[in-house]
Amino acid sequence: MRTYLDCMSCFVRQALEASRMVTEDERIQRDVLDSVMEMLPKLSFHVTPPEIASVVHRMVKDVTGNPDPYKEVKKRHNQLALNLYPRIKEIVAQSDDRLLNSIKVAIAGNAIDLGVQGHVKDIEGSIHAAFSFKLIINNYDEFKERLMQCNFLLYLGDNAGEIVFDKLLIEEISMLKDMEIVFVVRGEPVINDATMEDAEFVRMGDKVRVIPNGSDAPATILSQCSPEVRQLFSEADMIISKGQGNYESLSREDKPFFLLKAKCPVVAGDLGVNVGDIILKSRVVE
Amino acid sequence: MRTYLDCMSCFVRQALEASRMVTEDERIQRDVLDSVMEMLPKLSFHVTPPEIASVVHRMVKDVTGNPDPYKEVKKRHNQLALNLYPRIKEIVAQSDDRLLNSIKVAIAGNAIDLGVQGHVKDIEGSIHAAFSFKLIINNYDEFKERLMQCNFLLYLGDNAGEIVFDKLLIEEISMLKDMEIVFVVRGEPVINDATMEDAEFVRMGDKVRVIPNGSDAPATILSQCSPEVRQLFSEADMIISKGQGNYESLSREDKPFFLLKAKCPVVAGDLGVNVGDIILKSRVVE
Repeated sequence: MRTYLDCMSCFVRQALEASRMVTEDERIQRDVLDSVMEMLPKLSFHVTPPEIASVVHRMVKDVTGNPDPYKEVKKRHNQLALNLYPRIKEIVAQSDDRLLNSIKVAIAGNAIDLGVQGHVKDIEGSIHAAFSFKLIINNYDEFKERLMQCNFLLYLGDNAGEIVFDKLLIEEISMLKDMEIVFVVRGEPVINDATMEDAEFVRMGDKVRVIPNGSDAPATILSQCSPEVRQLFSEADMIISKGQGNYESLSREDKPFFLLKAKCPVVAGDLGVNVGDIILKSRVVE
Repeated sequence: MRTYLDCMSCFVRQALEASRMVTEDERIQRDVLDSVMEMLPKLSFHVTPPEIASVVHRMVKDVTGNPDPYKEVKKRHNQLALNLYPRIKEIVAQSDDRLLNSIKVAIAGNAIDLGVQGHVKDIEGSIHAAFSFKLIINNYDEFKERLMQCNFLLYLGDNAGEIVFDKLLIEEISMLKDMEIVFVVRGEPVINDATMEDAEFVRMGDKVRVIPNGSDAPATILSQCSPEVRQLFSEADMIISKGQGNYESLSREDKPFFLLKAKCPVVAGDLGVNVGDIILKSRVVE
């Protein structure tokens, strides 16, 4: 997905929010904003939004001197999600269509995204509401069919906290069919995106192999990913791509199934849906 | 009210919206945004938000070469409000407290503000809903008392469209007590703020004397206003200040009664209310 001019003010807002995670000193916050605003006019917009976001968040880390502004927030979200997990697991297990419901929960977990809204409201409420979600783009049949033929699934994670519900979906998938699953996290901390540290915190490694993608973008920008991740991307029978960032960077790829909540007008517009809609989309069946 | 760092992304968003009013050419839109982002780091933030906004919107006009980007929108809003006027006037006339209800309608008219939300949803619905509004800060008794002692009222207008409902409030005030009323509009077009052209379109001059404030800010920045407006400000027995922009620029002045809807988190925070709350506030009774 290309970068729209609407993304500019959003980058400025994100930079402020990230700098507020690090310090209450308004002079430092303003230094961050000034640096970002001086840089944005120099960038080409013929790239995806996360490519610019990665430059913005690198600048936040440089100016504040903090390599992981969302460290504490991520820990809190992981713990919060872990606390919810047993009850949600139980509801999924008792439901009619466990796979569909665990997909919905995994998308609801995507509400835990500080890049877009700046704050997370009532995570517990969102997760519980997931069961009555209606998928606005719904390629579930295709998804299920591909899953039953899949021997190697590549799962591109998104945010801390959210990955607990990705783990739940992975458990359901594993019960349906035996397959190799690799879970990919970001290579470096950026916003509240999940890294190896978060995957370890929620014990994702108990279920699947976890690897970092080698990039500090809040997305999967293949050209910035490690050769290993690029190879797995090309070898996988099926790819699950979680969240807006991964969608923004991979929307022109045929392979992934995109599981996300459309959280901003630009992404919603690109998908032809409304802000807040939840999506299970395959490009192949377009 | 001081400028907060949160206002930065809002200035960038406003610049985009204003440039989109002028052209669909993304290169020009990007030129505007780049110019604004290059300028913002150079400005002191020890001023009120409209002081910066006036510089931003001057830049929009310079870069696009259009001195009045919202000209057509303002005309549309004026006409829309004029169409609603007879029915709303009738409802006010039949109500228990005509003054209070015309105040509420005048504040509802303040929903017609493209500086904050970028678009106006369902103006008719908002105006009709006004009658059930609850004033969250409510200095109505003080307002009424001062009005009954007032011989010279200065009324600081805000947006096009909205001024039709200001006119309705002025008519109600005039029926309560005979007094001199001067209605002040912006000196130059800025966003969708009302100018002499708009006042003429809605025939405000039939009721009161209308004067431009001599400034191109979306607010009443006294140091930028004409000597005449400054003198009237000091001579007036009572001042009605409509909208966010006027509040942002005059919040430290004791004299005005502020009638506004808190439309952004920064102004709402300054007032200690929630976004969307409507306010009739006097600093004197704080």
